[in-house]
Amino acid sequence: MRAAVLNSGRVFVRDDIAEPRPGAGQVLVRVKACGICGSDLHFARHGAEMLALGRQMSGLPFQADEVDLARDVHMGHEFAAEVLEVGPDTETDLSPGELVTSFPLLLAENGPAPIVYSNTVHGGYGERMLLSAPLVLPVPNGLPAHHAALTEPMAVGLHAVNLAAPTGEGAVVLGCGPVGLAVIAALRTRGVAPIVAADFSPARRRLAGRLGAHHVVDPAAETGWAAWRRVGGDRRLVVFEAVGVPGVLNDVLRHAPAGSQVVVVGVCMGDDVINPYFAVTKQLAVRFAFGYEPAEFAESLRAIADGDVDVAPLVTARVGLDDVPWAFDALGDPEEHCKIIVEP
Amino acid sequence: MRAAVLNSGRVFVRDDIAEPRPGAGQVLVRVKACGICGSDLHFARHGAEMLALGRQMSGLPFQADEVDLARDVHMGHEFAAEVLEVGPDTETDLSPGELVTSFPLLLAENGPAPIVYSNTVHGGYGERMLLSAPLVLPVPNGLPAHHAALTEPMAVGLHAVNLAAPTGEGAVVLGCGPVGLAVIAALRTRGVAPIVAADFSPARRRLAGRLGAHHVVDPAAETGWAAWRRVGGDRRLVVFEAVGVPGVLNDVLRHAPAGSQVVVVGVCMGDDVINPYFAVTKQLAVRFAFGYEPAEFAESLRAIADGDVDVAPLVTARVGLDDVPWAFDALGDPEEHCKIIVEP
Repeated sequence: MRAAVLNSGRVFVRDDIAEPRPGAGQVLVRVKACGICGSDLHFARHGAEMLALGRQMSGLPFQADEVDLARDVHMGHEFAAEVLEVGPDTETDLSPGELVTSFPLLLAENGPAPIVYSNTVHGGYGERMLLSAPLVLPVPNGLPAHHAALTEPMAVGLHAVNLAAPTGEGAVVLGCGPVGLAVIAALRTRGVAPIVAADFSPARRRLAGRLGAHHVVDPAAETGWAAWRRVGGDRRLVVFEAVGVPGVLNDVLRHAPAGSQVVVVGVCMGDDVINPYFAVTKQLAVRFAFGYEPAEFAESLRAIADGDVDVAPLVTARVGLDDVPWAFDALGDPEEHCKIIVEP
Repeated sequence: MRAAVLNSGRVFVRDDIAEPRPGAGQVLVRVKACGICGSDLHFARHGAEMLALGRQMSGLPFQADEVDLARDVHMGHEFAAEVLEVGPDTETDLSPGELVTSFPLLLAENGPAPIVYSNTVHGGYGERMLLSAPLVLPVPNGLPAHHAALTEPMAVGLHAVNLAAPTGEGAVVLGCGPVGLAVIAALRTRGVAPIVAADFSPARRRLAGRLGAHHVVDPAAETGWAAWRRVGGDRRLVVFEAVGVPGVLNDVLRHAPAGSQVVVVGVCMGDDVINPYFAVTKQLAVRFAFGYEPAEFAESLRAIADGDVDVAPLVTARVGLDDVPWAFDALGDPEEHCKIIVEP
């Protein structure tokens, strides 16, 4: 079958990818739509560094299989797909033709494997892939595949908001890329107000308003902090750091109001300099958010399908497999693109 | 009167300090004992940098008066003292001769001022000082002044533990200086177990055991993480970073078990490099702890006076005012000293 793969730092399409075959408890699906995630772009450029960082770490619940960057790497974890075939000895109500999505984890014989970067587990940048029957969710309400594919990135925002568990606080969202926008949408569905959003890009600021931010600022004209003082005053605050660029976290520690909660959801994957003195003096709590729970994934799908969250404005292009290499470059420009959907 | 002051980076004793006079709501006291805090040592050496950092920050509830390092700076916030005279129009049950301590904040006509570093507000390194009547606590049970003076540093540990609000977790305490030891004591009174403590100093490790750590390790022989895996296994964990030296926080992020809560209570006052990727991947929550609430200060005094916390082993020397400059140097050696008490 055909799939776009990463190999030795280059993204390209191959025609000779082995067909995945469903085992017990698995479902073979035809990918209808898969969003390109910023973390995929980062992995394509800095995969070796990320893997090296992973090897430095201890304390992980399980060690993922080592990825060999010199072999084909499959990516694509924001997918919606059509059921083709249910594996042997698999209990499920799913029928062929049904549109589904899934928490991106493949339960296989040798243990669970995240569907994210792998030499062996196929992702959504290919024609077909395997899902785990117990994790598959039917897409309700006739939601189209290219919107259902946004279940995953929107769940990231929902999880970050749930971690903060706001009870009466307002919010400042720094950075309005897909992650920041997902945070804004989740804050809005949770009734948080006011939501102040900041981004240097006019296009991203427009999206922030459409997703539900009450006040959107260009940090070149007014910082998020100044805007917050103007509209939030002395109220308690949750700050979402969704930029993920070195220096931003220290700026948050320097300027966030004393006692604030900070949720880091933009992943800065390189060394970053902070001064803990700022954070100590103001007694900040910094939560680092990652992924989401299966229940949050399901809630995200429901919110999109019920129309509580309108993901349509996020989709700035829909392309075939052959355009995946182009899309990896095009996503560098926030004025042109937010979420590009691959339709293999 | 006599007082040890900091002036232009040097600590020395002056005989010509103006007598403090109690205003309305204030109490004049004779200092009986005052502990030397690591933050005083740091301020003596790096005061200019700390003040510069303070000026960079926004979001503080109130801006403290600017300190002029070229004038006398009064310090000493870990004190026990004897009531000499109650100010005019002051409602209080205090009587002269009574031994007291106080949350270190002076309520004055022009607003509240922390008793910490000041050109105008006297601290505990002088013969006499002012306290705020509503914040003064009588020292119960005949507790001696040089133990009552430890109410303040022990409250810092109690507050850090309260912020973490452990419910069944064990604890790893990195660094067994006065702050780490106060954390250990508070963990023990809260019934947290097991408590693993790590410090390179044999003397500090002995103190950690006396204050209540269940397992004490020399990181040169076994890291706190390895010890935790050995005795805590897969249990949930709160990590207390009480070292406050660049690099330690990143080490915590790199090795703490996924999902851990990290409380930073050792103040690293310089730039520090972290890699947020570690913290995100393991979804750590990092709380930066500062000071304590008045209720925690009162609980700390009660715990010491009731014998729940034995502070005696912490006191490694008791000196007069003339030896304050010596003590500031001597505290650099963790083998010789932990807490030096000034008795003016």
